[in-house]
Amino acid sequence: MRSDGRNFDQLRSVSIEKHYIKHAEGSVLITVGNTKVICTATIEDKVPPFLRNSGQGWITAEYSMLPRATQQRTQREATKGKLGGRTMEIQRLIGRALRSVVDLHAMGERTIWLDCDVIQADGGTRTASITGAFVALAEATHKMLEKGSLKKIPLRDFLSATSVGIIDGKPMLDLNYIEDSKAQVDMNIVMTGQGKYVEIQGTGEEFPFSKEELEALLELGRKGNEQLHGIQREILGDVAKLIGE
Amino acid sequence: MRSDGRNFDQLRSVSIEKHYIKHAEGSVLITVGNTKVICTATIEDKVPPFLRNSGQGWITAEYSMLPRATQQRTQREATKGKLGGRTMEIQRLIGRALRSVVDLHAMGERTIWLDCDVIQADGGTRTASITGAFVALAEATHKMLEKGSLKKIPLRDFLSATSVGIIDGKPMLDLNYIEDSKAQVDMNIVMTGQGKYVEIQGTGEEFPFSKEELEALLELGRKGNEQLHGIQREILGDVAKLIGE
Amino acid sequence: MRSDGRNFDQLRSVSIEKHYIKHAEGSVLITVGNTKVICTATIEDKVPPFLRNSGQGWITAEYSMLPRATQQRTQREATKGKLGGRTMEIQRLIGRALRSVVDLHAMGERTIWLDCDVIQADGGTRTASITGAFVALAEATHKMLEKGSLKKIPLRDFLSATSVGIIDGKPMLDLNYIEDSKAQVDMNIVMTGQGKYVEIQGTGEEFPFSKEELEALLELGRKGNEQLHGIQREILGDVAKLIGE
Amino acid sequence: MRSDGRNFDQLRSVSIEKHYIKHAEGSVLITVGNTKVICTATIEDKVPPFLRNSGQGWITAEYSMLPRATQQRTQREATKGKLGGRTMEIQRLIGRALRSVVDLHAMGERTIWLDCDVIQADGGTRTASITGAFVALAEATHKMLEKGSLKKIPLRDFLSATSVGIIDGKPMLDLNYIEDSKAQVDMNIVMTGQGKYVEIQGTGEEFPFSKEELEALLELGRKGNEQLHGIQREILGDVAKLIGE
Amino acid sequence: MRSDGRNFDQLRSVSIEKHYIKHAEGSVLITVGNTKVICTATIEDKVPPFLRNSGQGWITAEYSMLPRATQQRTQREATKGKLGGRTMEIQRLIGRALRSVVDLHAMGERTIWLDCDVIQADGGTRTASITGAFVALAEATHKMLEKGSLKKIPLRDFLSATSVGIIDGKPMLDLNYIEDSKAQVDMNIVMTGQGKYVEIQGTGEEFPFSKEELEALLELGRKGNEQLHGIQREILGDVAKLIGE
Amino acid sequence: MRSDGRNFDQLRSVSIEKHYIKHAEGSVLITVGNTKVICTATIEDKVPPFLRNSGQGWITAEYSMLPRATQQRTQREATKGKLGGRTMEIQRLIGRALRSVVDLHAMGERTIWLDCDVIQADGGTRTASITGAFVALAEATHKMLEKGSLKKIPLRDFLSATSVGIIDGKPMLDLNYIEDSKAQVDMNIVMTGQGKYVEIQGTGEEFPFSKEELEALLELGRKGNEQLHGIQREILGDVAKLIGE
Repeated sequence: MRSDGRNFDQLRSVSIEKHYIKHAEGSVLITVGNTKVICTATIEDKVPPFLRNSGQGWITAEYSMLPRATQQRTQREATKGKLGGRTMEIQRLIGRALRSVVDLHAMGERTIWLDCDVIQADGGTRTASITGAFVALAEATHKMLEKGSLKKIPLRDFLSATSVGIIDGKPMLDLNYIEDSKAQVDMNIVMTGQGKYVEIQGTGEEFPFSKEELEALLELGRKGNEQLHGIQREILGDVAKLIGE
Repeated sequence: MRSDGRNFDQLRSVSIEKHYIKHAEGSVLITVGNTKVICTATIEDKVPPFLRNSGQGWITAEYSMLPRATQQRTQREATKGKLGGRTMEIQRLIGRALRSVVDLHAMGERTIWLDCDVIQADGGTRTASITGAFVALAEATHKMLEKGSLKKIPLRDFLSATSVGIIDGKPMLDLNYIEDSKAQVDMNIVMTGQGKYVEIQGTGEEFPFSKEELEALLELGRKGNEQLHGIQREILGDVAKLIGE
Repeated sequence: MRSDGRNFDQLRSVSIEKHYIKHAEGSVLITVGNTKVICTATIEDKVPPFLRNSGQGWITAEYSMLPRATQQRTQREATKGKLGGRTMEIQRLIGRALRSVVDLHAMGERTIWLDCDVIQADGGTRTASITGAFVALAEATHKMLEKGSLKKIPLRDFLSATSVGIIDGKPMLDLNYIEDSKAQVDMNIVMTGQGKYVEIQGTGEEFPFSKEELEALLELGRKGNEQLHGIQREILGDVAKLIGE
Repeated sequence: MRSDGRNFDQLRSVSIEKHYIKHAEGSVLITVGNTKVICTATIEDKVPPFLRNSGQGWITAEYSMLPRATQQRTQREATKGKLGGRTMEIQRLIGRALRSVVDLHAMGERTIWLDCDVIQADGGTRTASITGAFVALAEATHKMLEKGSLKKIPLRDFLSATSVGIIDGKPMLDLNYIEDSKAQVDMNIVMTGQGKYVEIQGTGEEFPFSKEELEALLELGRKGNEQLHGIQREILGDVAKLIGE
Repeated sequence: MRSDGRNFDQLRSVSIEKHYIKHAEGSVLITVGNTKVICTATIEDKVPPFLRNSGQGWITAEYSMLPRATQQRTQREATKGKLGGRTMEIQRLIGRALRSVVDLHAMGERTIWLDCDVIQADGGTRTASITGAFVALAEATHKMLEKGSLKKIPLRDFLSATSVGIIDGKPMLDLNYIEDSKAQVDMNIVMTGQGKYVEIQGTGEEFPFSKEELEALLELGRKGNEQLHGIQREILGDVAKLIGE
Repeated sequence: MRSDGRNFDQLRSVSIEKHYIKHAEGSVLITVGNTKVICTATIEDKVPPFLRNSGQGWITAEYSMLPRATQQRTQREATKGKLGGRTMEIQRLIGRALRSVVDLHAMGERTIWLDCDVIQADGGTRTASITGAFVALAEATHKMLEKGSLKKIPLRDFLSATSVGIIDGKPMLDLNYIEDSKAQVDMNIVMTGQGKYVEIQGTGEEFPFSKEELEALLELGRKGNEQLHGIQREILGDVAKLIGE
């Protein structure tokens, strides 16, 4: 039994609230246990220089935490004057992950900015960001479809992410902050609706792990991501049917 | 009649939700019309260098907007690598305003950080931040009182803020974004529960204003702030009684 | 009686020396008591991006202090690598204030940079900057008129600024550094030649102030600014007659 | 057959030259095909603040490329004034990877800096950095052992890294730059001498990958890393025997 | 004959006004032709970390130009967020030059900051800064002597600097801006009162120069510096006698 | 006799290895005693803004040291977020020196970047950079000649640099680190193949020097540079004959 009463293979309770920020083309508040992230999708009618005149679009992500999202107040990166390594790593991951299911050519020469702002953190903020950003992205591209600026939703598949880890020698799904801080192995798994891997990032800084342990973690990750795809489908309703067409 | 149907002397609907962020000593979500700000209060057991060994505490504020709080996405200051002039001006104002009602000696050598993060912006974000931060501060200091680390709540009075302005020659209370962008004169008024001015900042960049116009604006500001004090009292319940004792 | 022997409603001695810096289109050394500021006006034949092809010009200001303008040496902002909040607030104020009396359309698509560099500081540097920058601006636009690049001086009115404050419960005009540091209320008042307010910024961080006190301060500010307009008129000589035509 | 004539499961030729930089406690030039990295280990007699008085040491890594290590000249990060996301990600990875085989308590309160400077890049610079840095670290800690400042070499195991990827649907070991740029899946595998995983980072940004493909990649990674451990053993000679004792 | 009517071996007219900035321990306005620099000396009762507990003092210099000191407005380095290479080079030169005549041990553990702020530039700003800073330094150390915090003025000799150059094949003393911009060879010579070289920096970027040309330039530099020492002596009056004792 | 057994007028052993970095148009590893610098030349088909449409090219240099090039590890400037004054001064010197022998008009509108990266430092890194960069530049321009993009090598003469100094009152050629740190006078001399001076930078921070001492130093510098030109000629072989045609 885990500190919050879950089974080793059980996700925390997940909810996704759509249309959360009035101005954004797509926006959600995703809640995974006590982790809460506002994800917005913004459409911009231009692309970064390296894609100009390529007929192709781009997806980019930015990630941040409110200073008091955490147990102890964290200094703002705007005040420090630069982004930390962790932030850069996470926002690169989110962008890369989302691009994997987007048909960039079908988007036209547009950039979609995915902003993931953690307002309360309790572990798994990067995976919640990916899961939530996918819904914001679907909402935003659907709005473009409705306005006639796209012919189809340029999403080839669903996409979600969850973390897994080994604690006291035991594999676990969806670590909260306390679990994460004592995990011997920590792995983030990003997966498509068809069960393919988009990103696997596993670290055994204090405890190198074996082939068998890896297998067990991958299996938990598969299970968690399947449930997350189900939740995404439900919240997206009719829009879900237009994904991967 | 105004674009949103209000009278010239009417506030937008205001709500303050307490205990909004789990980890913070004090936290609220303040909603003023479509403007939404998360205000948290964090207590730190040390003071800035200039106050060391003074027996006195300090209040400092930071202000930020999520990139998609606004109609058009705004670039993050953390990405730009520096705070803009507007942000600095606002956070200096918030800190100064709040300090005016705090008995810094009664706080002991502690710093209270007030973080105001705008998640949705529709005009009046700095005044909503002040009004909300006051409640977060009251909540945080009350928690210290309950834990016995303070003998009394070190707040001498209530504090709120609202904006007033002149549009098409007519004074108005509590401008939303559209109104703000066409205002000829724009003024922020920060006021104590006893009706004294803590800060008056009025600008007639495109329309210098007369003594009479100033009088009308001040009167609207008084009215708005009185209502805001009422809302603060209500949301603070029993804690309200300990303020200004 | 004040520390320097003035009456409560008396300005310090003010002098404005024109043509102070050889290369600038307009330049003055303004002296207010022991406060000395070099103000230059530079004309640039382009506007910021947001005004391109608008037919409209722009006024922008920058403010700085020499490190040893102050009692204690202040670290250079260039060395720190960023502008402080105070500097940003002041230069935003100066720019905004000056724009209020300029007919930006009559300027054509040009930017006028107003640089205010404090070489010796003794309180009231921001208000001296505004008063001095107005004269540098008049000089620079007059030079353009003479060269035929403007048809009239695009200044609708005179503009000056002074500070007022409450010390030991008593309202005072034009605070020097010592007075400023013990003031309970501190207010900057920017006023046009016709006696209208362009900017009022009053703060009672340690002493919230009443309606009556505000009235007294505004009256002192009016008196001080009227004298400053007189001094500007005198120094500008014939050019003064072309302002507000 | 690959562009450089290798089999799909063949490493490029690898050489490690010890004592490469005179001043450093440990230093190598590692060559993997056309990729060349100078790795140095520097011992510092203090630890970061979070470890002070913990009796524990720390390993930290920095990574950089000379501007002309690459086909096209890359702008220096020192000139840009900040580290890019890629650099931060890589140096975090190197540090984390090396820490996994170090007994930080046995090191005493010291920091070892691992500097990995790519002088010529042809793919796989981060994995070459890890493989080379391990040897520099062994050399540096051996020097401490000889001087009597350590009682044993605080390395629990060997550590190396290589990349694998899928190109045109086919798994390949140790990608060079051309291969890397057309890879559909790209994975870095860091492994201990005992065949355990320390880090797995796999990305299928343009081609999500299946369980079976993952298996094939892991098998190639195992093979490559085993060979790299052999090369490390050989170059370290007698020192190799003191590792993992 | 030169553009301003001088002979090839003639300095521009030089004046040094003492006690120029009220707050500084030493301060001058030095005027060399149309070049004007405010030099202040600030005494601080601590030294940089590398000199702590060494019983030795330090001299450091900072150099800056007002934006409109130049023909065209120059962007502020504070606004750019960093010092340019030229500024750094100049302030390193000024500090190094002044240290050469100071008995750092006799100063005690103090730092003297020499701030050189160019308010009007017409060539030779760095050499004017050195010549002026010497006088400010003498004034400041004399003040310390009078207050009893030093036993003697810790200056071993006089110090001044001037520029020389080759224009149209002809050596010239003390170049103004126009001359400087067409000079083939440009050299700054810093010299002690006893005629020794402290710094020689000569550049023939577009016109490498011969041994004979170098001789001619050095001779002009000697002549100019001797005159500058005379001017310094005169302005320092009785204080001059205490230098080099 | 010097610490490394050399005569006072003897260079350290110098070697220049060509084609050192595969990707660069020109590249060398220059070794001067224990000082080792990688110099690369990169050709870019555009010029800085101030030269656009001038028909003229540009030479620019960047200089850096690996953190462990030095006895003690030096913090990276990329990590600090800015270039230090010493780095800027050196890279400005290298660029200026090389430009003196380049026919910028014959280059066409191209920029050649000279990157000098010190991998091991033992004094004289800036002079070794100049001497090495000249060879990389010759190699790169020769490659352009062979490809037909230039009609002749745009180098008017050879160029090298060495340091000289006074130690214990005795002039010495080519100081190593130990010598440099105890030198009373330190001078860098950049010279053309025809024996003209391009740059002389001499500093006697702790020991102002006389005319006679200067003469002795210049003579040593001449001797050292002549030998360096010989070494450059030899390594360049047939290319040497195309220089200065």
